[in-house]
Amino acid sequence: MKKIGVVLSGCGVYDGSEIQEAVFTLLAIDRNGAEALCMAPDMEFREVNHLTSQETGAKRNTLVESARIARGRIRDVKEVKAADLDAVIFPGGYGAAKNLCSFAEKGAAAAIHPEVARLIREMAAAKKPIGAICIAPALIAATLGRDYKPKLTIGTDPGTAAAIGETGSEHISCPVTEFVVDKENKIVSTPAYMLASRISEAAEGIEKAVKAVIELT
Amino acid sequence: MKKIGVVLSGCGVYDGSEIQEAVFTLLAIDRNGAEALCMAPDMEFREVNHLTSQETGAKRNTLVESARIARGRIRDVKEVKAADLDAVIFPGGYGAAKNLCSFAEKGAAAAIHPEVARLIREMAAAKKPIGAICIAPALIAATLGRDYKPKLTIGTDPGTAAAIGETGSEHISCPVTEFVVDKENKIVSTPAYMLASRISEAAEGIEKAVKAVIELT
Repeated sequence: MKKIGVVLSGCGVYDGSEIQEAVFTLLAIDRNGAEALCMAPDMEFREVNHLTSQETGAKRNTLVESARIARGRIRDVKEVKAADLDAVIFPGGYGAAKNLCSFAEKGAAAAIHPEVARLIREMAAAKKPIGAICIAPALIAATLGRDYKPKLTIGTDPGTAAAIGETGSEHISCPVTEFVVDKENKIVSTPAYMLASRISEAAEGIEKAVKAVIELT
Repeated sequence: MKKIGVVLSGCGVYDGSEIQEAVFTLLAIDRNGAEALCMAPDMEFREVNHLTSQETGAKRNTLVESARIARGRIRDVKEVKAADLDAVIFPGGYGAAKNLCSFAEKGAAAAIHPEVARLIREMAAAKKPIGAICIAPALIAATLGRDYKPKLTIGTDPGTAAAIGETGSEHISCPVTEFVVDKENKIVSTPAYMLASRISEAAEGIEKAVKAVIELT
């Protein structure tokens, strides 16, 4: 059975992984006959109250909170190598742009979590497929832009698209229920909640993108 | 557009709503052309670390954590009346049996959160459909068993089925990808993660059960 890594960044759109995107990713992996291997970095992040959208001043741990989505079956990303996986997928949520890297604050000059950067670079070097959902393509762009010049999408937002362009990557506009494939670099991306106004729109784009990732393995 | 209440109890299988079940419920509501109205009681609960399955000693708030699943769009259950809804659905997770009521500790003698009990009783009195997933049928049984003698399922677990029987309700065994309908009381239930060994099994049962709930409106 093909093993598909799913890199989480917490549990909740404002300070971690977008929950619905992560769940649709896990479902699509199973429905395509592959096995999901959930992982997250072991790091603190700033908690956001999702009722008020405001930071609380408290911290939580990315690995511990991500375990909620994974029902406890999750590994520290530092223990996972590209050799363990057939592909890897990054759901969105602010955690992808604030915890896995600092794109939300620094744009194209973002620092990448070292173990996340290592895994992305190992996957690219091994020519194994990478999927990225919502804002997560910005993480891939910031990690691989200079060396691989990937083509990817975060939907249509001009500011984010421009910052992705500054990394050396090429942004391609894409509607919410579709996806973009960079065949040369085996990178698949879909806008999901960067554009979705309904949960079924996000689900449809993710179902198609995950299927495309698995077909590239 | 039909309005379907979704009563959450936190965010995570061990101390709140089972995340995947809640997300599949929201997706199925949208795909069936209805609108989800998320709600949760405003109460403290005991936090469980989902990496270790152990209580941490800290507390969290049910409404604030449930907002993570609902992307911030959620109401206090005390503000919602049966007149506002066409149907209501309860996803599972230990939160349904520890926060919404004390079934996990007290079985058939469980105390029900007063606003949750009020809403369930209002829905039953108005003959509006109630959906219950995973362990949540135990909450419905403990609330309505004596007066309505509902027929419902939590799958096949003998101990839980016996405790449901003690409420005056009738437990009916059911496979994971199917559901049970009590036509007289308009109660639909499906086992989901009481039985599921794969995420796609939980998704299939929930998709069918939510469709059945909406068809009963």
